[in-house]
Amino acid sequence: MFTPATAEQRFVLDHIVRLSEISAEATPDLLDAVLDGAGQFAAGEWAPLERLGDTEGARWTEQGVTMPEGFAAAYRAYVEGGWGTIGSPAEHGGQGLPVSLSVAVLETLGTANMGFCLCPVLTVGAVEALHHHGSPEQQAQYLPRLATGEWTGTMNLTEPQAGSDVGAVKTKAEPAGDGKWKIKGTKIYISFGDHDMADNIVHLVLARTPGAPAGTKGLSLFLVPKYRLNADGTPGDFNDIKVVSIEHKMGLHASPTCVLSFGDNDDCIGELIGPELGGIRAMFTMMNNARLNVGLQGVQVAERATQRAVAYARERVQGYRGGAPTAIIEHPDVRRMLLRMKAQTQAARALVYYAFGQLDRGRAGDAEADKRVELLTPLAKAHATDLGNEVASLGLQVHGGMGYIEETGAAQHFRDARITPIYEGTNGIQAADLVGRKLSMDNGATLLGLLADMRAEAEDAGLRALIDACEDVGRDLLGSDADDRLAASYPFLTMLSVAVCGWLMEKSGRLAAQGDGEPGFLQMKQAAARFYVEQIVPEALGLRAAAMAKAAALYAVGAEAFAA
Amino acid sequence: MFTPATAEQRFVLDHIVRLSEISAEATPDLLDAVLDGAGQFAAGEWAPLERLGDTEGARWTEQGVTMPEGFAAAYRAYVEGGWGTIGSPAEHGGQGLPVSLSVAVLETLGTANMGFCLCPVLTVGAVEALHHHGSPEQQAQYLPRLATGEWTGTMNLTEPQAGSDVGAVKTKAEPAGDGKWKIKGTKIYISFGDHDMADNIVHLVLARTPGAPAGTKGLSLFLVPKYRLNADGTPGDFNDIKVVSIEHKMGLHASPTCVLSFGDNDDCIGELIGPELGGIRAMFTMMNNARLNVGLQGVQVAERATQRAVAYARERVQGYRGGAPTAIIEHPDVRRMLLRMKAQTQAARALVYYAFGQLDRGRAGDAEADKRVELLTPLAKAHATDLGNEVASLGLQVHGGMGYIEETGAAQHFRDARITPIYEGTNGIQAADLVGRKLSMDNGATLLGLLADMRAEAEDAGLRALIDACEDVGRDLLGSDADDRLAASYPFLTMLSVAVCGWLMEKSGRLAAQGDGEPGFLQMKQAAARFYVEQIVPEALGLRAAAMAKAAALYAVGAEAFAA
Repeated sequence: MFTPATAEQRFVLDHIVRLSEISAEATPDLLDAVLDGAGQFAAGEWAPLERLGDTEGARWTEQGVTMPEGFAAAYRAYVEGGWGTIGSPAEHGGQGLPVSLSVAVLETLGTANMGFCLCPVLTVGAVEALHHHGSPEQQAQYLPRLATGEWTGTMNLTEPQAGSDVGAVKTKAEPAGDGKWKIKGTKIYISFGDHDMADNIVHLVLARTPGAPAGTKGLSLFLVPKYRLNADGTPGDFNDIKVVSIEHKMGLHASPTCVLSFGDNDDCIGELIGPELGGIRAMFTMMNNARLNVGLQGVQVAERATQRAVAYARERVQGYRGGAPTAIIEHPDVRRMLLRMKAQTQAARALVYYAFGQLDRGRAGDAEADKRVELLTPLAKAHATDLGNEVASLGLQVHGGMGYIEETGAAQHFRDARITPIYEGTNGIQAADLVGRKLSMDNGATLLGLLADMRAEAEDAGLRALIDACEDVGRDLLGSDADDRLAASYPFLTMLSVAVCGWLMEKSGRLAAQGDGEPGFLQMKQAAARFYVEQIVPEALGLRAAAMAKAAALYAVGAEAFAA
Repeated sequence: MFTPATAEQRFVLDHIVRLSEISAEATPDLLDAVLDGAGQFAAGEWAPLERLGDTEGARWTEQGVTMPEGFAAAYRAYVEGGWGTIGSPAEHGGQGLPVSLSVAVLETLGTANMGFCLCPVLTVGAVEALHHHGSPEQQAQYLPRLATGEWTGTMNLTEPQAGSDVGAVKTKAEPAGDGKWKIKGTKIYISFGDHDMADNIVHLVLARTPGAPAGTKGLSLFLVPKYRLNADGTPGDFNDIKVVSIEHKMGLHASPTCVLSFGDNDDCIGELIGPELGGIRAMFTMMNNARLNVGLQGVQVAERATQRAVAYARERVQGYRGGAPTAIIEHPDVRRMLLRMKAQTQAARALVYYAFGQLDRGRAGDAEADKRVELLTPLAKAHATDLGNEVASLGLQVHGGMGYIEETGAAQHFRDARITPIYEGTNGIQAADLVGRKLSMDNGATLLGLLADMRAEAEDAGLRALIDACEDVGRDLLGSDADDRLAASYPFLTMLSVAVCGWLMEKSGRLAAQGDGEPGFLQMKQAAARFYVEQIVPEALGLRAAAMAKAAALYAVGAEAFAA
């Protein structure tokens, strides 16, 4: 049922990321070795556990969280195979290859087992934060084991009263002597906040130091290990972090979502990462990485749902075509759904990989790429997860009644996908980020630069019209007040995302027409590109009216009238 | 958490259905008594069981299906309150009031408890089939008890190899003497195929008689009670119908989805309903009713999800507005989601009730209305269920992380809603019905007549453009071959549905501006109408390209390339 999308990944790395421009090390041979190896590993070790992760799921006891049978061994195999090290810094035990390439590995692992893959994704976020903001001692103590995945990482932001409003965090950090801090507070929604697959868990915790100002400016980031380190660097004493419970979620059951209580016995010790009150900056390092990786989850679930639906539609015989019984893939509307799934999955992948490619270029010193990835991050997070949900829903629909029966597996994708537009900043928060900070970067020049690049290559008249519409709306929003920007934010995010995807898809179709490779693969890329440009791009033009509407329409009635 | 939408129902019955034109009996006082009474009953007896229906659900044992604690008593209260009798024929123990009014009662019951309400809905379908196709003896024996709900009904169409293709049914009926038939075969997906809430269950079963031709033409419909009737009409001997299992579904757990085996011991006796080989005609009577009622489920789940999200958004404080902490309903993008939910829920209700109103008019002898409800049935079924899913998803999103936690309740709506685009003919089958039989009625005149009525009242330029686009596409499809029609069917169904909803919503907004009533309610109707016309109607115009695209784009690659 699971097939790694290696041909797709190779195509996108070659033609959308243009990885050869980024890294001389990432030769075609190396690429093939990494993509094929990750595919074989994921198919052999992770995919077989996907259903068990859903049906049994992670379990909580007073002693902590237990993963289902087989997960610990499969995780060890991942660590031993070195799959966590690809994009990690070479000076700390990683292979230092482009992030874009490590992303292809994560895509494959997450397509095989989306909930499980969240554990490595969070660890990558912790590596990023320590690599950029940790002290040399912290880096030396923690990074080598995080880079391999021997220890895992978490992000501890949310509290019951502090969801989208991170500035409302109340967890406290008090000086404990020796430059250490005592941590006290409760965090919720901590993915892989506890489990039994690694020897230590490194929590990165946002907390407030004594006398810190209110809001996000008063936050500091702390490194809080589950087990304190002995003098030789091995895990030692328990650090007073209690797993209060795990959530009973609609999906993603393989990923334990923990409530963690730090310092119930006043004995939870943390270290400051970066300067005091520098928490929000360090957090954004983690969060931007995490947001792109959540966009990647949209690709994962879309890819898997598509594979499952295609397999079903080729097998299921129902009705007739030309007088003969036929597999349902031959019926026009089923085929429309499947082609839409293929096109949207490819579009999501192109968008997310393109963003990661800009991240790699930015790290190599390209200042324009650095800004572009900032602009693209809300699009990649929000739109790719929206597409993951759309594709998972279409996949369920292709199965008919069987899709609603849990044993078939299509329902799991539909349930798993639904968290991705919510966590790491809801998609509404992404849209607010787009029309706020991102649109205003260089007074709009970052957006206009992207649109100019798109316009220079776009050929289809509808696509060009969409790009023009995005520019019209963007200029209109630049001159609008905050409420009007926010009222239009979501439709604008979708329009702009589809325009970017349309540009990348049209280009992919052209390249596939010229390219050499497996004919069926290249023909499907062209068909998907054509479908995207001819049918999905025009839909996005239909959002122009909403993106130009003002907040007044939303506030025509008071809140109490919504309950009338 | 549950509030019956009586003001909305009254508005739609008065202004969209125009019930006073249909029935002199349905006076304002009667309307209020029925709507308020049903609301109080549903809030008091059915809504409190909704969560238990999900968490515990119906259970299977060798002895049959057991409903969760409290369901049997709540069902008895429904029967005793006479809530099942409103739209049933007066000559068979019903009240003979317009179907449109009984629909409002079903909406309220299903908003309180969607899975539970499927039991009365199926019983209504059985009443319809027997009323139109049963013999006088069958009507006398069965209708009075079905009309009250004392006995419940089921529809037995699907078999493992016969889903969307009903003509592939294999269940057999052999003459058993006395004009009776022996039934033998296995049926799947039988909602409320067994339960412990009523003294008898009346299965309507499609089966094939000896020598019957292949396909749908060879089907006959049989009445097969769980318990055969004694001479005095009371339930007697068990009729050899085994409940093999119930499905493990993603949602709608209160509704047992049964696999039924008829005649394992060659002792299952049925009676023919209507003439031999007349099964498909009788089935359509049931199915058309059921399709509109599934559309109504879209309204139910949308209404409930909206109520839950509005309540949460008014309570949940997060972030600031004007410097002060604020409930999230005041944030522009949250408000956009909620206003969209209100608008889409009202639109779905207007569409479904309008269709039922045409059904009532058709029964009263209006031939045009009879055709119009046929045209509207696929729209009401498919589009209202699509909207139910969209609204349930938005409702979950409004809850943020809490929405993904099962205890909150938003996830249940999202899971429950997902079956509605699948059962009673997938929405793809509805789209095929629209561009096939329905579009061709009177060579397109039924569609053009509807569009003309819409154009005569529509004021907004965008709405008029959408109506024109529907006519263009409709005329194009009338001249297209079958594959091209089917390739365009789903986008066309959505465009046309939005056009009908836009027409009804714009009209509702106008009437609300002139109307008297609760000011908050009337203002919200105007705001929802404006949002619908200004933002949702233009989106549907974006589907024109897809609705004009041809099948060739879908068949550019072969089926095997989808797995490449």
